[in-house]
Order: sequence, then C-alpha cells, then structure tokens
Amino acid sequence: MVGLKIDDLIVGQKALYSKTITETDVYLFAGISGDINPAHVNNEYAKDTFFKERIAHGILSASLISAVIGMQLPGPGTIYVSQTLKFLSPVHFGDTISASVEVKEILKDKNRVLLNTSCKNQNNVEVLVGEAIVLPPK
Amino acid sequence: MVGLKIDDLIVGQKALYSKTITETDVYLFAGISGDINPAHVNNEYAKDTFFKERIAHGILSASLISAVIGMQLPGPGTIYVSQTLKFLSPVHFGDTISASVEVKEILKDKNRVLLNTSCKNQNNVEVLVGEAIVLPPK
Amino acid sequence: MVGLKIDDLIVGQKALYSKTITETDVYLFAGISGDINPAHVNNEYAKDTFFKERIAHGILSASLISAVIGMQLPGPGTIYVSQTLKFLSPVHFGDTISASVEVKEILKDKNRVLLNTSCKNQNNVEVLVGEAIVLPPK
Amino acid sequence: MVGLKIDDLIVGQKALYSKTITETDVYLFAGISGDINPAHVNNEYAKDTFFKERIAHGILSASLISAVIGMQLPGPGTIYVSQTLKFLSPVHFGDTISASVEVKEILKDKNRVLLNTSCKNQNNVEVLVGEAIVLPPK
Repeated sequence: MVGLKIDDLIVGQKALYSKTITETDVYLFAGISGDINPAHVNNEYAKDTFFKERIAHGILSASLISAVIGMQLPGPGTIYVSQTLKFLSPVHFGDTISASVEVKEILKDKNRVLLNTSCKNQNNVEVLVGEAIVLPPK
Repeated sequence: MVGLKIDDLIVGQKALYSKTITETDVYLFAGISGDINPAHVNNEYAKDTFFKERIAHGILSASLISAVIGMQLPGPGTIYVSQTLKFLSPVHFGDTISASVEVKEILKDKNRVLLNTSCKNQNNVEVLVGEAIVLPPK
Repeated sequence: MVGLKIDDLIVGQKALYSKTITETDVYLFAGISGDINPAHVNNEYAKDTFFKERIAHGILSASLISAVIGMQLPGPGTIYVSQTLKFLSPVHFGDTISASVEVKEILKDKNRVLLNTSCKNQNNVEVLVGEAIVLPPK
Repeated sequence: MVGLKIDDLIVGQKALYSKTITETDVYLFAGISGDINPAHVNNEYAKDTFFKERIAHGILSASLISAVIGMQLPGPGTIYVSQTLKFLSPVHFGDTISASVEVKEILKDKNRVLLNTSCKNQNNVEVLVGEAIVLPPK
C-alpha cells in the first residue's frame, strides 16, 4: 500500500478514474458538506434556473481528482499540498465524469510534483480543470 | 431562495459554517469520491503514518467552503467560477471545522466577486486556505 | 428477540424477503465494500459490456439471504457457519429480488441446520443459488 | 479499465484490500440488506450475547473479497461465477479487515480461474475463508 515514489514518475504519466454521478451521490454530498443549495436538492427551484434541472456540486467532481491522486498517481502515502479548480460546465445527474491526472513537472530535490488535473463528461466536455501540487511518498 | 446580489455585498463581509467531521462523513465521502486511500479508511495503516490515525479527505473540508458560498455568501443563484486550495494541516475525525468566506474584492461591471476562503479547526489552526471567484445572482 | 430453536424447525419450512434493488443500494454498497468496479458505477463503461447497463454487486443479493436467516429463519441468535453462492444472472437496477431460505436438513444432535438459499428476480429468474449452514439459537 | 486476462495470471498471484470496518459501514449495510438483526444494530441486546457487543455482518466481510476480485485480481471485466464462505470469527466495529485473493488453479481452455479467498483481522485471525470461481475478461 505505497504509491509511486518520485523516481517512479515521468512527465506525461497519466491516470484516470471514471464514475457516473448519481442523485444518490449528490444527496449524500449535500448531507456531508452542508451545501443544501436548492440548485442541488430542489427540483422545482432548479426548473427555473439556467440549467433547468438539479446539478452536482462542483467540489464533488474535484473529489474524483483526489481519488486519482490518492489511489493511483502518485497513490497511497502522497501528501496533497494544493489544488486549483476552475468550474467550466455543470455536471448533471447521470453524467459520467472521468477525472484525469497527468504529471506536468517533477522537482526531485524538493520531492514535489506538479500535476495537471481535469474532469470531462461522457461527451468529452471539460467540466473542471486545474493543477495540483503533491509530495509523493518517500 | 435568492442569494445576495452584487449590490448587497461589501468588502470585508463574512460568513461562516462549522461542523464536526465524523468517521461517518469520511466513510461516505470515500464512497462517493472513490478515494478509499488507506489514510482515510484503514486504521492499522494510519498508525504507521506521520499522523498516527486516519484523517479526513482534504476536499471534504473544501466542501464546507462550497456550503458557505452556496448557502450564505453570496448564497443561492451564485455561479462558482473557481477555487484555490492549500492544504495546511490534517483534519482528524472529531475535529470541528469552521469554514469562513470573506469578500475581498468586488468587480461590479463584471458581476464578479473575489472571496478569501479558509477552514480552521477547534484549536484555531488553519487547515485549508484559498481564494474563490464567484458570480452572485443577478 | 430470539429466533426459532432447532425444535421449532421442520424440513421444508420457508421464509422470504423481497426488495427492489436501487441505484442508491448499489452506490452505497460500492462505498462500503470498496468495489467501485465500473460495471457497477460507470454507465458509459457498462454500455459496452454484455449487460449493456450497470448491474448490482452479486454479494448485494447474498446480503438479502443473510437478512432472511438473521431476521426470520432461524432469526436472531443464529450463528451463520457457512454459505455457498452461485451467481446465475445479473441483477439490474430496479429489479425486485426475492431471497428465500428453506430448511433442507436438520441435525439435532449437532444443533446444525442446512438451508437451501435462493434469490429470484421479478420475472422468477433465479439470479443466485446456494446452501447455508447455521446454528439456531439454543 | 480492463482487468487481467487469463494469460496474465499465474498460480500463487495475490491481491489484497484492507479497510477498517466502522459502525457506519455496518449500519448502512443493515439498511441495504434489510438485515437489521439486533446482533448488528442493538447494543443492549448485544451485551447479553456471547460477543458482548454488536458485530459486523459476515457478508460485509465477503464484500471486501468481491472488491479485490472486481478491482484487482482479475479486475474489471471479470465474471463472478461462484463463492464459498466459511465464517470463522466475528468482526467487531473498528477491526481492520484484510481481504486477500490468491490464484489457486487456472483452466485456460475454459477461461476459468479458481481463487483462494480469505479475510483476516488486524491480529491476523482469519475471520472468513472460501474459494471463488471467476472468468477473467477476454
């Protein structure tokens, strides 16, 4: 249960995790976070919004990036230093989100890695983009 | 169910949401995100880590910021444009996390607001800091 | 809250529990088990599989058998010794699964009972079959 | 997202998944399965049982084996044919269960693999043992 060390990483290396986001996910996430904004849990309210229906929390998509980092690249033992997030498109219930992480830059002397992070839906529309800095396990 | 419009906001305005993060929150979050990293769900593994026990996902704390933005400042109808996150300290099961949001800059012509965002634990230790850009409801 | 003792049981005695298996059940089960196999939680992936859509975990159906044994036949106080499981057909989201348990053999001197166990869907298709050995409460 | 094919497998190959089983897991599992036997959800009842406290469902441990098979060995695309389960010891809330799967026999002409499956707790006590038959992805 130890992830990839800095010497195991190369620029361009990628990992992916995909999941269909369901009403269940959004409702549980609303309960955990306390973000019970009507855009997420009130269908009547949502009908009158620009998106016409309830949408998932943006941070829920970000959590899939965290899964790729924590489980695969670099994986267990990684310290998560920072993450930037730009929310580009809404995620609808039933969308299948693919979170991808790619090694962008490796600073061996600092044991620090810069990652490009992105979430796309089933139509290849980018819904979230950003960068993460992590410390791989030693 | 409409949040604060840009004319309702002033620089320095604040809002807060606090919650005790439980084992239940972390386990549900692991299931939603797919981040079943042993640091979060394996107590035996965690004993041998720097933190000595299971810790919460960093993005779970970020979700409390999302709750403040979506529920209070600016509240329902807000479009979440971006968020930066620096993870400063671990969150242990049972920690009470206070997520705070403060208006830093208001760009009226673009209907755009810059927010300082922060999460602190019950000992006033900052566990997460960052900035958000949002579009308040029109 | 005490189940049936060995003298209360006769060969051929039956009990049943039926439940519609939902997306919620499958997603929660995925989180508990850590089995986030794309066949269960990724609709895009599932479209290209033989089953054309996400299916429930086989062990989720087995858990309904456990419910019949633990709640009804023999019920509270029973010790679950063993279970065999043959997975015969997939369970789709929305299928109503009936788990049935039937007393097959009673070994009074050993306080041991052999049960036939089966799960069928709403079309009477057997999705799971097996045998259990239990020790009824004394 | 394709697991190991039969030609990728060798006898003796192993995979493992470990998780601390919490009250949350047991309560959600009770809700999903309908197995609300007091041994799992009634602390007052449990005080008077042999185990003195609430214990996890046996099938919950089995679900971790399913996770190893579905996620790692052989992984996505595997068809789960059968599983035998012998429940050897109770699982207490807070126990860390390691589910392991080992390739025992490979029948190439039938694309069929026999696996030894086992769950142990943090004290290396075997709580569940059995065998699985699976069809690896083609």
